[in-house]
Amino acid sequence: MTMRFLAVPQLTLRRLNAVFSAGSVRRFGRMRLVQFCHKVAEGIVRVGVEQDEGQGIVDLKAFDPSMPSTMREFLELGPKGMDCAKRALSSGQNVLPRSDIRLLSPVTNPEKVVCVGMNYKDHCLEQNAPIPKEPIIFSKFPCSITGPNDDIILPDESQEVDWEVELAFVIGRKGKHIKEEEALSYIAGFTVANDVSARDWQMKRNGKQWLLGKTFDTFCPLGPALVTTDSLKDVHKLGIRCFVNGATVQESNTNQMIFQTEKVVAWVSQFVTLYPGDVFLTGTPPGVGVFRNPPVFLKVAL
Amino acid sequence: MTMRFLAVPQLTLRRLNAVFSAGSVRRFGRMRLVQFCHKVAEGIVRVGVEQDEGQGIVDLKAFDPSMPSTMREFLELGPKGMDCAKRALSSGQNVLPRSDIRLLSPVTNPEKVVCVGMNYKDHCLEQNAPIPKEPIIFSKFPCSITGPNDDIILPDESQEVDWEVELAFVIGRKGKHIKEEEALSYIAGFTVANDVSARDWQMKRNGKQWLLGKTFDTFCPLGPALVTTDSLKDVHKLGIRCFVNGATVQESNTNQMIFQTEKVVAWVSQFVTLYPGDVFLTGTPPGVGVFRNPPVFLKVAL
Repeated sequence: MTMRFLAVPQLTLRRLNAVFSAGSVRRFGRMRLVQFCHKVAEGIVRVGVEQDEGQGIVDLKAFDPSMPSTMREFLELGPKGMDCAKRALSSGQNVLPRSDIRLLSPVTNPEKVVCVGMNYKDHCLEQNAPIPKEPIIFSKFPCSITGPNDDIILPDESQEVDWEVELAFVIGRKGKHIKEEEALSYIAGFTVANDVSARDWQMKRNGKQWLLGKTFDTFCPLGPALVTTDSLKDVHKLGIRCFVNGATVQESNTNQMIFQTEKVVAWVSQFVTLYPGDVFLTGTPPGVGVFRNPPVFLKVAL
Repeated sequence: MTMRFLAVPQLTLRRLNAVFSAGSVRRFGRMRLVQFCHKVAEGIVRVGVEQDEGQGIVDLKAFDPSMPSTMREFLELGPKGMDCAKRALSSGQNVLPRSDIRLLSPVTNPEKVVCVGMNYKDHCLEQNAPIPKEPIIFSKFPCSITGPNDDIILPDESQEVDWEVELAFVIGRKGKHIKEEEALSYIAGFTVANDVSARDWQMKRNGKQWLLGKTFDTFCPLGPALVTTDSLKDVHKLGIRCFVNGATVQESNTNQMIFQTEKVVAWVSQFVTLYPGDVFLTGTPPGVGVFRNPPVFLKVAL
């Protein structure tokens, strides 16, 4: 994931990269789902399957015109959609070179974006905070989602914009009061997100409710690909890193997560029904800017 | 608005009513927009116009088949949709008796539900809290919205479920960085909501982030009607009341609001783009259960 920061109205120079270490990702089914636009038809969303990471994209609707145009609708089809995607990938047909497309976030317009705070042991340590006994849940508005290569807006309203690389997952089927041992079957796949955070608004204003500091437009870069759940051997043994201007600023492993994926699904589904397309961000490892000495924030290089 | 509380799995006996005093509502255009289902076709959403409060409903799609089926899509049409609704109302055609329909909330599946906390002077007084200097913004997930006459679920997970009647409004057109003096032109109309709140989760758990206590499924009864902005003379001179089991538990006036509608729109649009259908809840007056001595919460009567 590469993010370019765009201040209003200046152009940006700082760059933020957030990646999983590919070596720890086992691809059994090797299904990497994406959303994209054809460059010649901006605004028309398509669901695609990557042939391999960074390779050509199979246009699912070109392969089967009965397939929907958005990931959320695709996920609502359940196994029927996934089976079609597998056939499309196997066919070797309807492949677009990456130069012809622009990647979007793998999901747009979910019903909700659910976030977990303070969910890495090493992140709690860096701020001398106790390990939470229960998940801490907050949210971003869906309109904060932006594509993995899109500019994000550095708002005039904040002087303390920080990075937070996170493992993200996307719900594949509707559920309420989901049991931990069944939780993985509700998850369509995993991806990477950045929970971009305006620390001044999150920590000092808005009655200490985190929402505003977390939800500026473009504060949720997501993607590139949604790696299907059956493609991953153990989602809690993944390297997770964030680069800013090419320098590694966060580096940890998802084995540091306090409340793992299954627990988070079960917990949140006590409160609300989960729907296909719902996006979860599972918390960030250490290395954020606000806890450095002195603090470091993203800014527009001149 | 009448709400029946449904515990799981028992039936409910307590009733909660939340109304505006009709006398203070001036109806210039008298446009009351609703969403409904035909009782013979449950699940098929329609946009309607009430002939008058509690009277027959004009089925907009029956009047003009080119009209969309949901309020969110209807609002996206802008003036074209509103003009059609006015013509439909004037026509006197395609009117359904209320016995044939079931009212839904006037909006379903908005992109966001934005809430303002601590926004009535008299509500701050009842809890000895200072008057906020800036709006305090939090959110509910859209799936918490339920119809004005629908059962709402009293969750096993909370023992402190409380009422909060609120003036609500719905965005009519897309905007960012909206000026206060232009804010009303972005609002399609006003309605009433109940910001049902699990105080144990809001105030004592989840790291004091309010989201979970506010967003249980069905914790946002909304409606019945969306009264268009041009139907109201002064939205900040409205009586606002909540009844529980027929007794008045909240009674105030929207002139007690600290941050008025226009200010709230301008404030929130600094952070996020507003979209047609976005729902705002503007804060509750005094009389909530948690600040009574002893506290009173909603429960299932036996």
